[in-house]
This record gives sequence, structure tokens and C-alpha cells, in this order.
Amino acid sequence: MSKPTPLSGFPELLPSERVVERTVADSLRRTFSLHGFAEIETRAVEPLDQLLRKGETSKEVYVLRRLQETSEEGHAGMGLHFDLTVPFARYVLENAGKLEFPFRRYQVQKAWRGERPQEGRFREFTQADIDVVMKDELPFHFDVEVARVMAEAISALPLPPMTLRINNRKLIEGFYRGIGAPDPAKVITVIDKLDKLSTDEVAALLVTDAGLDDAQAASCLELATITAADGSFVEQVRALGVEHELLETGLAELAAVVDGVSDLDGDRFSVRAQLSLARGLDYYTGTVFEISMDGFESLKSVGGGGRYDALASDGKTTYPGVGISFGISRTLIPLIARGHLRGSRPVPSAVLVAVWDEDSRTVSNQVAQRLRARGIPTEVAPSAQKLGKQIRYAERRGIPFVWFPPTAADETVHQVKDIRDGNQVEADPDAWQPPTQDLHPTIVSTTLEELS
Amino acid sequence: MSKPTPLSGFPELLPSERVVERTVADSLRRTFSLHGFAEIETRAVEPLDQLLRKGETSKEVYVLRRLQETSEEGHAGMGLHFDLTVPFARYVLENAGKLEFPFRRYQVQKAWRGERPQEGRFREFTQADIDVVMKDELPFHFDVEVARVMAEAISALPLPPMTLRINNRKLIEGFYRGIGAPDPAKVITVIDKLDKLSTDEVAALLVTDAGLDDAQAASCLELATITAADGSFVEQVRALGVEHELLETGLAELAAVVDGVSDLDGDRFSVRAQLSLARGLDYYTGTVFEISMDGFESLKSVGGGGRYDALASDGKTTYPGVGISFGISRTLIPLIARGHLRGSRPVPSAVLVAVWDEDSRTVSNQVAQRLRARGIPTEVAPSAQKLGKQIRYAERRGIPFVWFPPTAADETVHQVKDIRDGNQVEADPDAWQPPTQDLHPTIVSTTLEELS
Repeated sequence: MSKPTPLSGFPELLPSERVVERTVADSLRRTFSLHGFAEIETRAVEPLDQLLRKGETSKEVYVLRRLQETSEEGHAGMGLHFDLTVPFARYVLENAGKLEFPFRRYQVQKAWRGERPQEGRFREFTQADIDVVMKDELPFHFDVEVARVMAEAISALPLPPMTLRINNRKLIEGFYRGIGAPDPAKVITVIDKLDKLSTDEVAALLVTDAGLDDAQAASCLELATITAADGSFVEQVRALGVEHELLETGLAELAAVVDGVSDLDGDRFSVRAQLSLARGLDYYTGTVFEISMDGFESLKSVGGGGRYDALASDGKTTYPGVGISFGISRTLIPLIARGHLRGSRPVPSAVLVAVWDEDSRTVSNQVAQRLRARGIPTEVAPSAQKLGKQIRYAERRGIPFVWFPPTAADETVHQVKDIRDGNQVEADPDAWQPPTQDLHPTIVSTTLEELS
Repeated sequence: MSKPTPLSGFPELLPSERVVERTVADSLRRTFSLHGFAEIETRAVEPLDQLLRKGETSKEVYVLRRLQETSEEGHAGMGLHFDLTVPFARYVLENAGKLEFPFRRYQVQKAWRGERPQEGRFREFTQADIDVVMKDELPFHFDVEVARVMAEAISALPLPPMTLRINNRKLIEGFYRGIGAPDPAKVITVIDKLDKLSTDEVAALLVTDAGLDDAQAASCLELATITAADGSFVEQVRALGVEHELLETGLAELAAVVDGVSDLDGDRFSVRAQLSLARGLDYYTGTVFEISMDGFESLKSVGGGGRYDALASDGKTTYPGVGISFGISRTLIPLIARGHLRGSRPVPSAVLVAVWDEDSRTVSNQVAQRLRARGIPTEVAPSAQKLGKQIRYAERRGIPFVWFPPTAADETVHQVKDIRDGNQVEADPDAWQPPTQDLHPTIVSTTLEELS
């Protein structure tokens, strides 16, 4: 076998890079669990008809077949999931009788899309999703809750600062109804083009495509410029003089969600009510979310979500939900590739136990076991080379401590050396403890300070 | 969408069942890390030519294509990995220049096989693999090390007792050479049939297929009966009076591996030198391992591995390795399905904070945040129902504690109730701590005692 080459769109990490991903995933899990979200995993495959319900992603689905499959029956009709929402909706329907509602769940798993790879966009990627799903009706306070949980989760990560942008479908649809727009959905579609077209071009489309007059168009564009870090957007909207019941509901909901995370707003995290945000608004029915990473706007959103009044339905019962997804690969792989993040070492070991000669390897193994028994990751030198070589073995792996068991000549004294400063002391394998920050590999952010 | 039905061979777990899988995976990770094994993940897909190098699994491979793929080029030629060894060997070759050798790695990931589903055999399953790989030459003591690490890892699991069976290819090949077998590989193939055929049938095949005389055949069969929990097998083999250099090496190696884990032999774990074990001996070159779960022999092996002198090779450099794989799905799914294992509750929450009325939900949220700040998983009641209903909400989820914030009438007193015994006490949200065993969901083994 000749040297294999990487496969475009299927990123893999070196051991020290995996430390970053593992640490981030564990941190997310911890926050989600603290808020009572249960973990589930769903299978990687779904029936194709489920995967293709959203027409626009159909071309991105990976279809499976068994190599020796003779007929088209077998697994024809199965594909890899392209997100965690479709499998979750199916899981809820399939297990509805065995779940307690409201059902809070988180899911950290891979998904696959056959799209063209580019920075932050992969064919295999890991996501972290939280959702709350209920039978029949889901109280609004869960919108505030999922925003809060994800805001806490991402602001705890050792990454560049994140911004959570929030809007509300009821707010903008109510506004468009309030000004007498004949087709509010069409207005939303046109306003959504603001990130690609000029304001003048969008204004013209609002007239030609959405049937607004010039004054109505101007009003819609003015609404889209409104953004605020707190509830002050409400007064800005009111100043536009439009009234509608749905608008009032949307204003109250958006203000409540923003207020629910505003105490986290700071160096690590920002919250913005942003009334131009139109993230798949045909799909969502109230709150919508989008997460971006400051300084990495080229990645576009690194997460998003919202409220859907029918996450799933079996015809008899409807299951409304609200949730947010965070792109772990989308966020981490570019940061790692650009050299901003790495693990402090490629091995878990905090200690290397030296071996004087192969006959005394058992002695070294026993020392290692005593350290491990107290939770200290430890490995034993692979061969009884000269001590200098054993120390260099540790250095190359970033293992901070080398342990010297007693030699035959002096049968009781253990010593441990911090190979970073050369400091060497006597130590008891049943009592010695490395500094907490040396115990496990951690994330090192090399140039993130400059970015934040 | 009508109610979906489960997909045969693709098991999914309910939230309380996922607690079991998560706890087991975390426990394995912890042991592997303590021994200095670094975690990696590999992509789910490999080139088909890599996956098909072992001819016998070709029919089980899932092949991928993109739904809208026009030509056969694109992803034709990609399949889902069916184990973690093929991807690991490829990863080592691809990243050889960036890895430090010896390279200890563990990997806990899903794999896929299109085989017929049965108890413990799935089309999607999770494995935990440890391996040590080296350039050119891998010292023998790593065979002892991986046996030790996996033995510690599995004996720490709250599962039925496990047995690690060990044999050595050099030992049996050396023995067959020592008795003058014309084709030792053929003898191994025939001896491997001992679990399907009678001793007499195997004896006949040793003569007709492997070219032995009756005395040689009897000698081989006698070797295969030898089993021991310690180094006493060496004397049993010597008593057969066969001499060969390779046999001596094999005896010494097997004795060393058995000795390296013998102190763990006990109620939770057994070690056996078993000289009939012929687990893919054409593939392995020295030590071979097989793990079984006591009382669940119908599952056959739940793990296995061994030494391969050429895990990978790029033509210039050869990478020998030694490793063991443990089947997480293979072990847990049958135990869960038979009702032996479950999580103590389906939610992480240790506390439910009651809500007096929707206006005071903020007060309840603040209590929850103070508990979470000290690492106590907490959720807030979904609605301000009567207290009895809120307590039943906790009961249905197995949440052990319900917290009552101060009412408007009495503004300072917090109370917390253990809903299992009804005991209710005043408590400070910044100081109260639940018993450690209630903090997180744990694994409950309902009838395992009877099995072990």
C-alpha cells in the first residue's frame, strides 16, 4: 500500500488536535446536562423518503447499498442523515409512547452531505444539537431556555467570541401584515436577499415581486436595519408606527429571549436582536437563531435554529419543538487548520516512568500503576535507553514529568523531574500530585487573543 | 408521516438506556487515558480497495454514492468502514511523519456491516479499540501492556464477569513444526474447527487434510485441550515432549502475557491461557486475544485482537502493532434488551425546581442557576401546575429532589424534598448538596447478580 492521501471534505485530526475537539464536545455536554438535557444518539441512516422531504438538500444525500446486493430492494432507499433534526423528529415519533414530554435532548454526532467542500463546509462533520419537544403545545418559555442553554454552552468554550443573533417570524410577518402587504411570505423571501443585493435592488423587488408601494417597501427596509443588544429594539419598531396583533406577540417574544441571555453579553459572547435575520423563515414559526464566530464571518453561521410548531406529526398528534444546533467541525476545523488552536500535548500521559533496564521494567510498571490509581495518566518508557533519550522521548510528546524509580544501588528513593525547568525532587508514588493544569491535555489558543 | 418502525440491525437506545452506553464508554476512555493511550477518530468512509483487501468481508461492505451523482467516478469506490483496524492502519500510513512512535491510540466509534442481524450482531455498532503501533519493530512487552489495559478496562465495567482468553501463534506453530507437521498452517485451520466438529472428526481431518499420522494428530489434539489460569500450562505443554525454538518463544510470550494480568483474576474478570484458541491465526503473528462475557456464551466473543507484525506498510517502512477491540454494542445491547441493565433515570437532572406561578418562573430559574453553578444538574418545572402534579413530573423521570423556592408570603425560606422518602428540609441553594450517588444517572443492574 502506498502512502494514502487525505480525502477532501472528510477532515481527520492528529492526536493533539483531537484533544481540542474532545475538550469542546465534553464542555458542551456538561452544560447541556446541567440543564437537564438527556443525551441520545440516532443511527446514521434514515429512509430516503424522510431525507428528501426538504427538496433542496436532495442532491447532497449519500445513498447506501450493500456491495453484493442483488436486487434494488435491500438498502436501496437508505441514506446517511445530513443533519440531526430529521433523525430526531423520526426518533420522537417512533418512541413517543416511551418518552416523557417535554423532552429535552442533546445529540453530538456526525452527519454527512455530498456538497462541494470548502472552509468550514465538510462532507462529514460533527454537530451538537439541543431541542425541547412537546406534545400538542410547547410553552414559549422553552424558547428562552434553549437560547440560554446554548449561550452558556458556547460562551464557556475557549474559542473566539460568539454572537447569537435572534429574530422572530411573528414579529416580521405581523409587521408586514400591519402595513398591508398582500403577500407577507413573499416579502420575507425578498428581504432575505439583503445580504446579496443592494438596498435599492431589494426595494425594487419589494415593489415588483411582493406588490408593495414605495412607502411600504421603505418601511420594510427600515425594519430590517434594526438591531440591538437589548430590548431597545422594541421602541425602534414602535417608532415605525405599524400596529398588528402578531407584531405585538413577536416583539414580546423576541424581547423575552434577548432578555433571557443578556446577562451573558460581554467579552466572550454577544447577543443581538437582528430584525433582518431570515434564516429559513418558511420553516420556523416564531423565534429564529443564528450563531456566528467573531473574526470568522467568512464561515457564515456556525450554528442556528428556532421554533417549529410541527417538528413532527403522526397525523393524530403534533410535536412542536424549539432548538439550536452548533457546528463543532464548522467551528473547530478552520481554527485548527489556521493554527489558532491545538492540544497542549498529543498524549494523555502526565508522567513518563523511566526504565533502568529491561529486567526492572516490572518495577517501573508498578510505579505507573500507583500513579494511575490516583488518576494520574502515566506511561512507561518503551525501552531502557540512556536517560537522556528517555527524557527526549517525553519532551517530544510534551509529557511534563519523568519519574525515576529507585535504582538497584539505592532501593528506596523515588525522584520526579519536571523536564520543562529541570527541577528534580524526591517523591512518593502514593502521594505526589502534578499541578492540576498538567494533569490532562488542555486547549492552547496561540493567537486567539489578537482575534478577540 | 405515520409512526416509523425500527430498522433491523440499527439499534437505537432510549434516554435511560443511553446512560448505560455513555457510562461504559466514558469508563473505557478513562482507563485507556490513564495508560497514556491517545484518542483519535477516523472518518466513516474508506476507499473500497482498502475495505476489500480481506476478501471474506466484501459482501458486508456498505457502498456510498451521492443521490444526484451522474458518473460512476465521484464516490463510487467509497464505503463505510466495517471495523476500526483498517481505518487505523490507513491513518498511521497517512500521518506517519506527524506521529510519535510507539503510538498508543484508542478509538471509540461506530462501524457498519451489511450482515444478517442477530442478537449481538448489528449492521451499525460501536467498538472500542486500543492498539500500539511502532515503526519496524515493536518490543514484546507491548503485548503484555495491551492485555493489561483492556483487562483493567473491562473489569472496571458494571457488567457480567468477563474472561480474557489468550493464545500464541508462535507456540502452536512451533509445536506443529516440532512434531514434524508438513503444513503447520493447515493444522491450524483444522484445529480451528474444534468448536464445530467432534474430536474424532478433527482427528480424521488432521490425517487426511493436514498430512499427519495418528500419533501426530493425537498430540495436536492434546495440545488443544490445555487451558490454565496461570503459567502452569507451560509444564503441561512440556509434558507432551515436543521441542522447537519457536515453541519456546511462544511459551515464554504467552506465560508473560498471562502473568501480566493474573493479579486481576477474580470475581469480575478471569484470564485463561487457552491453547485451542485460533482466532484468525493466519492474520496474527504472535499473541492472540479473545474476550467473552460469562453467562452470555451465545454471543460468542465480545472482543478480541492480537499481534500483527505488519499492521501497515508503505513498501519502505513496516508498522507492526498489537491491539484488542471490545464490542460495546455487542455487549450492551443484548444486556439492555434482556432487561439486565438500565440507567437510574432518563434525565441528567438531580433536582426539579418547582414553579409557584408563571410570574415567578424567573425566581425558579435563578435557583436552578445557583444549583447548576455548583455542578448540580437541574431543571425547572415546565408549568405552574398544582404541586402534586409537579412532584409527579419529577417522579416519572426519576428526578430524586424537588426544590421549593420561597413563596411570596415567606420570602426567605427555600425547601428541598427527597420525593423517594418524602423528607423535606430547609436548604440554601448556594450550599445544599445531593448525595454523590444521586448527582448523575448511574447504571442499575437488575438481575446481574444471579448471572455472575
